[in-house]
Amino acid sequence: MSNNLDALFNPRNIAVVGASSNPLKAGYIILDNLLSIGYPKKIFPINVSEKEILGIKCYKKLSEVEEKVELVILITPSEIIFDIMTDLEIRMKKKNDVKVIVCAAANYGETKTPEGIRRQDCLINTAKQYGIRVVGPNCIGIIDNINRVDTTFVETLLPKESRGKKGGISFISQSGALAASILMMGASQPAPISMNKFISIGNMADVDFIDLLEYFEQDEDTKVIGMYMEGYPDGRKLIDTLARIAKKKPIIVLKVGRSEIGAKAANSHTGSLAGADAVYDAAFRQYGIIRVYTIEEMMDTLQSLDSGILPKGNNVFILTQAGGPGIYCTDAYMDEKILKLPVVEEKTKKKLTEILPDMANVCSPEGYADITAAANVYHHVESLRTVMDDDGVDSVIFITVVPTFLPRKELAEGLVKLLKNEGYAKKKPVYICIMAGNYVWECRKILEENGIRTYNTPAHCVKAAAHMVEYKWFLDSVRGVE
Amino acid sequence: MSNNLDALFNPRNIAVVGASSNPLKAGYIILDNLLSIGYPKKIFPINVSEKEILGIKCYKKLSEVEEKVELVILITPSEIIFDIMTDLEIRMKKKNDVKVIVCAAANYGETKTPEGIRRQDCLINTAKQYGIRVVGPNCIGIIDNINRVDTTFVETLLPKESRGKKGGISFISQSGALAASILMMGASQPAPISMNKFISIGNMADVDFIDLLEYFEQDEDTKVIGMYMEGYPDGRKLIDTLARIAKKKPIIVLKVGRSEIGAKAANSHTGSLAGADAVYDAAFRQYGIIRVYTIEEMMDTLQSLDSGILPKGNNVFILTQAGGPGIYCTDAYMDEKILKLPVVEEKTKKKLTEILPDMANVCSPEGYADITAAANVYHHVESLRTVMDDDGVDSVIFITVVPTFLPRKELAEGLVKLLKNEGYAKKKPVYICIMAGNYVWECRKILEENGIRTYNTPAHCVKAAAHMVEYKWFLDSVRGVE
Repeated sequence: MSNNLDALFNPRNIAVVGASSNPLKAGYIILDNLLSIGYPKKIFPINVSEKEILGIKCYKKLSEVEEKVELVILITPSEIIFDIMTDLEIRMKKKNDVKVIVCAAANYGETKTPEGIRRQDCLINTAKQYGIRVVGPNCIGIIDNINRVDTTFVETLLPKESRGKKGGISFISQSGALAASILMMGASQPAPISMNKFISIGNMADVDFIDLLEYFEQDEDTKVIGMYMEGYPDGRKLIDTLARIAKKKPIIVLKVGRSEIGAKAANSHTGSLAGADAVYDAAFRQYGIIRVYTIEEMMDTLQSLDSGILPKGNNVFILTQAGGPGIYCTDAYMDEKILKLPVVEEKTKKKLTEILPDMANVCSPEGYADITAAANVYHHVESLRTVMDDDGVDSVIFITVVPTFLPRKELAEGLVKLLKNEGYAKKKPVYICIMAGNYVWECRKILEENGIRTYNTPAHCVKAAAHMVEYKWFLDSVRGVE
Repeated sequence: MSNNLDALFNPRNIAVVGASSNPLKAGYIILDNLLSIGYPKKIFPINVSEKEILGIKCYKKLSEVEEKVELVILITPSEIIFDIMTDLEIRMKKKNDVKVIVCAAANYGETKTPEGIRRQDCLINTAKQYGIRVVGPNCIGIIDNINRVDTTFVETLLPKESRGKKGGISFISQSGALAASILMMGASQPAPISMNKFISIGNMADVDFIDLLEYFEQDEDTKVIGMYMEGYPDGRKLIDTLARIAKKKPIIVLKVGRSEIGAKAANSHTGSLAGADAVYDAAFRQYGIIRVYTIEEMMDTLQSLDSGILPKGNNVFILTQAGGPGIYCTDAYMDEKILKLPVVEEKTKKKLTEILPDMANVCSPEGYADITAAANVYHHVESLRTVMDDDGVDSVIFITVVPTFLPRKELAEGLVKLLKNEGYAKKKPVYICIMAGNYVWECRKILEENGIRTYNTPAHCVKAAAHMVEYKWFLDSVRGVE
């Protein structure tokens, strides 16, 4: 790849212009995040008055740093951008090393004021002159968990052990706040989510959706792409790019501005016209781009697809330990026209009847079983195994409320043994919902730390299951045509 | 009230038949829950082999307890129900004191086996003979937070300080598991929810929806009624009851079996026919009963209505600190046809422009303002005050992502000062969404502990706001007609 974005995600040394010693300032948190994630190369804080911050030597100017700097993070007040660009020119004439700038600071083009536009022009024009790519301005920054780069000023409270953990999800957000929310919510799951690459693109003054999509298309570590999008100036080109990539990797889009008023708010925000939503919507459907409507649906669908296992078809079995939540699930299921309750083989029904408590409901309706509140760990695990062994079942939604007398840790361990150790999770998708708030948090954590994602409610399982089938069918249709 | 349910929610002494000294058994947890909630009268554990459990003296038989017992909880194996009923008869002939039985045990009529039906008949017929009401069998039990009664065997992990805390919500569930989930999820909020009265009705062999609805109709402490429902044998009578009560108190229903297959699963579960969903749906609409479709929507709507403040009309202002989440909210908002973005007065716009950061978007579109990520605590609080002061605004959705450099505790305290101390929360509903996972948990907790509910996402605020308007308009229409 020649577009310099390698230096964004895997830079040889980073300078933080506007580094601060005040823990409440973004210029401090960026340094702290770089240290926390374990960025392995050198960091150069630029600050006129400090000697060192967080134990790292400071420099007064970027041009004073002797060693190579490929990535520059700007978190200075926007008024001084002109001085900083002058200093950058001095550096480039001498060293010619900087390849990317992440301008986290705001008060640029997005203000639509003459000063803001002038500042942005200065930044972009100077950078262009030296072939430097710019992310932002007015963005949260980027994270690369594999290369251990975190330029954000978002304090996610991500536990240290989760930093640097691999994941196949790469995410692009046009809203810094939504990006931050997703990072913070992801850090608040039973086992915190680790993105592969994460980027907040702010004003898209230079690096934009298409640059990043093309980068993620080639990036072997990116298995699934997520996008939060308000608008893009060249919709046709964006759709063409999305359509090409969706044949190789799933792309999930939360596009706002669906309503006329929402589009107006989007236009006030990023200035980019949302474009007729119906046009986008039709294109998404045609080209296999998965559209989601809520933040929860985005998180669930990203993580389901990151498992790497697609279902063979739309036969999704509902296996529940609890009647009410099972029926609730069935209603949500029937809303998704794409899903079909499978008729399992007689031997599967016979086996379920044999192993389960007397009161269990086996396949009434077809494709649905209630193992009842009397089910112990064995009943949970073996009924799941039995259903997954049936050739007519493509995936399973598995719901349990975990009564007080059922040992939660043993349940989690039993499921891990089946799904991970015995390899069942690699055969078919399973959507696990363990429904009881904080009471089952540790139980869910054991599963998630073993790579088995859990969902908050049965309806969340259903949405994820439907999107998985949707993408599988799209791939099938593409292969049929090509 | 003459239907003995007073003795269910405020019994003079309780016997627990089947009390256990094993902390993993339901018969132990019930005792523990009664102690934790601080039940103020006497508890008599009945257990043939133990001398005392949790420091309370045990009795071998119910008939041996000398003091008055109004409520009996049964958590014994169902096979011995015949012996227990024989002993109950001995007691009733001697003391004639028991008024209600909560039969938490399963393996009764719901099994549809001859033995199960025989056991249930024995229980119900014996009770009837002595005018005793029966809740269950096959239920989780009941909670009354005001009278400090908790007969459930659900370990909610509700902090001790939340037990006995007043709330206006009374909830009836036809599914024990769903009831347990709601209790456990409610206990997992930033500030745990405290229901007023909570009841899982199991098989409805005696006490049913109508008994409880009539009780809650009269109960002054019940401000809002929630119901999870699968089916009811006399739909007409149920609707009549709901319709009468909905004119006085809001009723929120999560009715499952919406789909044909869901109805079939419901029938397999509780045996009660779900009834044509369309008939219920039409009746709910006609009689002002609020129908919700997800568990989250139920929780949010119950708590919004429990605030006791209804909006005057449907003019709901969106005030956001973050563009992306604001636009996301606007889309969800436009999906609810009932809501209308208000055009505020010129002086309101002028004031917002004066007090907010330069970059703020004031009323483009109308009824929407973005105070921007530059907003400090003052900007948050004063913009909310300004919008709430406008006569054209009936309620406000307030979204913030809380950047790292904004002090979260001060923000919470600023909002508490305005909404609680200055009384703004009593003027108009405000739906607050502070979007950043665990990072803002403490901030949300401060608000919730001061009676100001927070919501997980902007879309959740929108659903609650729409249901509040829906109920207000229903009340207006009823008053117009009467």
